[in-house]
Amino acid sequence: MSDASEPIPEPDFAVLRERAFNLRWATVAPDVIPLTAADPDLPVARAVAEAIKRYIAKPHLSYGPACGLPRFRRAISEHFAREKSASIAPSRVIATNSAASAITLVARHLLRAGDEVVVQDPVDFLVAESARRAGAALRLWKPDGGRFTLDGLRAAVSERTKLISVCHPHNPLGTLWSPSEVTAIAAFAHERGITVLADEVWSDVVLDGAPFASFAGCVRPGWIVYGLSKGYALAGLRIGAVIAPDAAAAEDFARAEGFEHTIEGASTLSQVAAVAALEDASEWRGGFLAQCARQRDLAIARLARLKGIRVPPAPQATFVLFVDIRGTGLDEDAISERLERIARVRVVPGSPRWFGSGAAGHIRLSLATTKAVLDEALARIERAWPEILSR
Amino acid sequence: MSDASEPIPEPDFAVLRERAFNLRWATVAPDVIPLTAADPDLPVARAVAEAIKRYIAKPHLSYGPACGLPRFRRAISEHFAREKSASIAPSRVIATNSAASAITLVARHLLRAGDEVVVQDPVDFLVAESARRAGAALRLWKPDGGRFTLDGLRAAVSERTKLISVCHPHNPLGTLWSPSEVTAIAAFAHERGITVLADEVWSDVVLDGAPFASFAGCVRPGWIVYGLSKGYALAGLRIGAVIAPDAAAAEDFARAEGFEHTIEGASTLSQVAAVAALEDASEWRGGFLAQCARQRDLAIARLARLKGIRVPPAPQATFVLFVDIRGTGLDEDAISERLERIARVRVVPGSPRWFGSGAAGHIRLSLATTKAVLDEALARIERAWPEILSR
Repeated sequence: MSDASEPIPEPDFAVLRERAFNLRWATVAPDVIPLTAADPDLPVARAVAEAIKRYIAKPHLSYGPACGLPRFRRAISEHFAREKSASIAPSRVIATNSAASAITLVARHLLRAGDEVVVQDPVDFLVAESARRAGAALRLWKPDGGRFTLDGLRAAVSERTKLISVCHPHNPLGTLWSPSEVTAIAAFAHERGITVLADEVWSDVVLDGAPFASFAGCVRPGWIVYGLSKGYALAGLRIGAVIAPDAAAAEDFARAEGFEHTIEGASTLSQVAAVAALEDASEWRGGFLAQCARQRDLAIARLARLKGIRVPPAPQATFVLFVDIRGTGLDEDAISERLERIARVRVVPGSPRWFGSGAAGHIRLSLATTKAVLDEALARIERAWPEILSR
Repeated sequence: MSDASEPIPEPDFAVLRERAFNLRWATVAPDVIPLTAADPDLPVARAVAEAIKRYIAKPHLSYGPACGLPRFRRAISEHFAREKSASIAPSRVIATNSAASAITLVARHLLRAGDEVVVQDPVDFLVAESARRAGAALRLWKPDGGRFTLDGLRAAVSERTKLISVCHPHNPLGTLWSPSEVTAIAAFAHERGITVLADEVWSDVVLDGAPFASFAGCVRPGWIVYGLSKGYALAGLRIGAVIAPDAAAAEDFARAEGFEHTIEGASTLSQVAAVAALEDASEWRGGFLAQCARQRDLAIARLARLKGIRVPPAPQATFVLFVDIRGTGLDEDAISERLERIARVRVVPGSPRWFGSGAAGHIRLSLATTKAVLDEALARIERAWPEILSR
């Protein structure tokens, strides 16, 4: 991914107030800035809008194929080859109605009630939720010094562990495993006879030119969940994919989980938009990623000056910042409530509901808005901070 | 629904050959006419294409609300009030990723393993499949004289029946219950403490001005599954809805089945297209329904002359024809195979896989193509018929 970029398009905040749900502009009071759910305020790349218009100019919207359009499956395959060190046959790719749906279906497919699953703590709620919905028992993999290490994984697995379900890159920590760490985790899992499920929905938001290696590219590949909500701002289109370890596993999955019966599947128009994003939006994304890195650095610098806050080292991935607020003497819910009430900025508290018990004492801020809005949000937080701490 | 109509737009068969999957143009040999999966060959209404273009002209595709856009839920509510004798609060409506997904989620929500469910036989495979996936045991409701009657239902239920899962209007028979039959079925179910689940995905294709009453409008409303693939040709967009018996049940459903967690949900762009269809495509649909009725009459008249075939009385709903071929001495698979090989017309055999055991000895033809294509398909069948019967 080159950092060479086209100018970032300006968001239309009036439109976002109508359209951006899931804790964002359409759901907050008019004077509140939401640094909440993780999709960007940016308009989609021009290529995406053009592709949708071109497709609908021939107004046939018939049933698509069960596992996804051939060109969608090929575009995912090529994207992973280009950017994620993984050579994937298109027959391993299945289009899904969002990454959230994908991780839930894969967990259901792989697990039986009572099976034991290792999940990171903290981690995006869907990782644990998908395992819980499959009836699995969770074992927690805790970070060491802010990173998830192989030693931590060894401590978490047991004789009965069936699945290691990871978020890579990691939400909310923003950490990224190096290619050799990925290889080591995959090898360890294989040695222990454990399957890996990797939620790689953040893998298009890797910053500073860091390399990304997908678990799909390992000698013994895992099951991959992918989506276009984070890196291409397509959350509303609900378009994602499962990448199975091989073509036969993909077919089994598609049969068992209802794709062959039209029960599951993704809108063809969403797939068309995704293809355009993957093939023709690299300049747009270059600009977006450069902006993410700048705003990360800006937010870290300013938040670090606030009393009681500890910011992490600059995250290598994602556009969220997971901030330790334990020094304030207040818990994550109290800080979040006060930030909204006093500073008029909404954040996501590190409650068990969102990120597991390991998130306590933290808040998450999403930074994928304009510099002007982020500046204003940070200024509000800075101004309100003495009052927030005083109550 | 008025029969006053705009001229039927001409399909672009080159585009259908690229886009129409699920047993249709993109999946058959170039010289085969598919009268198979039930979505129309028609281009969508102009209003639908325009709405998509207008939406994407402001290129923000952020997360939609968990249960669907307010305007989508309102449009469904108004559509049911206008056309289906049912007054539904928008809070009862939940947008889903297709009707197929909807019926599967509702069955899973209502049933526990071992629960007993009454399903019609024959019936669209999704009715039985959704119950089977929930682990339920099936009891079969058989038609009397080509119709599903209350007497047949009485014979099918047992003390342990939890759910009656019906297809209304009925695919593949094309039969339609009158408003008083709907009331009687709902009352019987209530009296026996049994829930009704009605797949009303065909309810926009009611012919000859017949009245349609939704199970959503009964004093004790059932759970309704609805979709826009049949009546508005939006199959590729995977847009449907669940209508719960009341707002509290809708909320429970949304929480339990993952809508609140973004696991389930429908593309916002698909919802925008659906709103345009429901609000601005009534002339388009008037023309389409008039054509469905004409083509039904044409196909019945011509097929009735073929030796060994028995056609049903004109179906009051759907654009499919379910034809009895037992008089040929051949089974449904043999006839279907010969129709494709000799006549170069593909139909759906009445196999257990598609419609249950009660479909044996029948084939289903979908008639929602142009008059020219239907004429050609019928002419091919007529020409090939002696050879088909002779082998």
